[in-house]
Amino acid sequence: MSPFDVLVVGGTHGNELNAPWLLQQWTQQPELVTTHGLKVQQVIGNPEALAANRRYIDRDLNRSFRNELLEGDGEEQELVRARELMRLYAPGGLDPCRVVIDLHSTTAAMGNCLVVYGRRPSDLALAALVQRSLGLPIYLHEGDAKQTGFLVERWPCGLVIEVGPVPQGVLKARIVEQTRLGLEACFAALAAVRSGQARMPKVMVVHRHRGSRDLPRDQLDAPSQLLHPALEGCDWQSINPSQPLTVAADGTPGVEAWCSDAVPVFVNEAAYVEKRIALSITQREVWPVQSDWCIALRELLCAV
Amino acid sequence: MSPFDVLVVGGTHGNELNAPWLLQQWTQQPELVTTHGLKVQQVIGNPEALAANRRYIDRDLNRSFRNELLEGDGEEQELVRARELMRLYAPGGLDPCRVVIDLHSTTAAMGNCLVVYGRRPSDLALAALVQRSLGLPIYLHEGDAKQTGFLVERWPCGLVIEVGPVPQGVLKARIVEQTRLGLEACFAALAAVRSGQARMPKVMVVHRHRGSRDLPRDQLDAPSQLLHPALEGCDWQSINPSQPLTVAADGTPGVEAWCSDAVPVFVNEAAYVEKRIALSITQREVWPVQSDWCIALRELLCAV
Repeated sequence: MSPFDVLVVGGTHGNELNAPWLLQQWTQQPELVTTHGLKVQQVIGNPEALAANRRYIDRDLNRSFRNELLEGDGEEQELVRARELMRLYAPGGLDPCRVVIDLHSTTAAMGNCLVVYGRRPSDLALAALVQRSLGLPIYLHEGDAKQTGFLVERWPCGLVIEVGPVPQGVLKARIVEQTRLGLEACFAALAAVRSGQARMPKVMVVHRHRGSRDLPRDQLDAPSQLLHPALEGCDWQSINPSQPLTVAADGTPGVEAWCSDAVPVFVNEAAYVEKRIALSITQREVWPVQSDWCIALRELLCAV
Repeated sequence: MSPFDVLVVGGTHGNELNAPWLLQQWTQQPELVTTHGLKVQQVIGNPEALAANRRYIDRDLNRSFRNELLEGDGEEQELVRARELMRLYAPGGLDPCRVVIDLHSTTAAMGNCLVVYGRRPSDLALAALVQRSLGLPIYLHEGDAKQTGFLVERWPCGLVIEVGPVPQGVLKARIVEQTRLGLEACFAALAAVRSGQARMPKVMVVHRHRGSRDLPRDQLDAPSQLLHPALEGCDWQSINPSQPLTVAADGTPGVEAWCSDAVPVFVNEAAYVEKRIALSITQREVWPVQSDWCIALRELLCAV
């Protein structure tokens, strides 16, 4: 049996309901998402967490795909599930898939965007093509030793589509529609690459991860100040270097020295409180698109 | 020992973080909230749920104050806690409080508002005075057999201050500040009533509960359509009677016949998904303020 072209994952986090709802509707109504002739598999990443309306049961599934965890003997629910997803859908698995698209939502005002992990040529080719078609911003996550083990890194090519703002546990028609459009753009790009008809852009705009900031904490480890209201909803926007990061309960602004070209993302994402991330800082860069990116993706899609 | 004038409760729902944070900051910084000479007690409603960042552990604490539950032998965590809060702070308890203010937040775009349960004169007096000072809208919850057992109903006078939108599990400085302002307005009103200097408005605007609507469900009880995007954020706004309530995944609008004066509240509140409430419908009414309301509240506050 030939491998699937694409694995689409929804519900990697169980309180992000919009992608699972889209996948369920798509199952009942196959014309809902245009696949451009690709052979697509879909799966709920963490069905137990979805049933419980919680991000995870024992640990974050989307931080569980590290080699030492996958090869270890940990029995936490998400480690067992990560190994199962690999066994089923990774290259060499029962129903192997070439590319993975992992659908997420966020409480931050990220709009519809792509997250790329590292600089694999095939990922960059796909992201560049989707940016060309829909104009989506790209968050390049790299060089962050505290946040590792993402699902998409275990496939030869994979992106996250991240859509927000939407509270955890809430279904919103606009979020579902943005997710659907992002997914269709990925399919269109992959089909075009496979058929040799993809028109790569000359450049892509990347927001490269530079670090994360937490709120100040008191002796009990609780936040002693909150994110400054002027930063709420400022994802993807350049920040005035003199803008305070935080504000105290009595209105006193915190002190902050930003680098002059800081662009925050994931501002006040609910799930990152426990990760001690009030926001992440990126640097906006314009990259020339390399011709070998598309070649790498085409080889992956056309391999027999 | 004389009773406390006011019990302030935060964290009745454990994933509504803003009020507990305000109370914690207030403890460290007593001048943060002006109490106008009132004797105030504060408490975290559901500390176990707050620690777990969940609405509740076993059942909704704010639906657990029904007589038959309080007097029964149920051992769910929230029933035990409800009895404990009564034993500690209700009239006749160890540290009795005359009035309770229960601080909540919502994922719906409710702004800063008051929720009144039923038509007790002292509640209406307090709500009318706070509406006079801050202009807050009032949701009068009554005649809803499916939603009963609210905390504030167990004290002789009590209101909910409800602030949104904010996702569950997220701290926002603006939400904290709105909560603080609402709480101070309650204190100012109560102090004015006790001293006989309260100036009651002639009328108050009430949004009276008329019913709730759920999304259509499929055979597996999952939503088969979502709330129509035109209704997102439309809390407190009159709805065109021809406005569809829902939309299908493919964009097909649902059919809906609204009454001509429907005003929705709690539109797409995350916590109400399990209660099968996509939104509630209210009717906007202008009520003359009765002179006996203020008298009832004054008697409560001045009783020895």
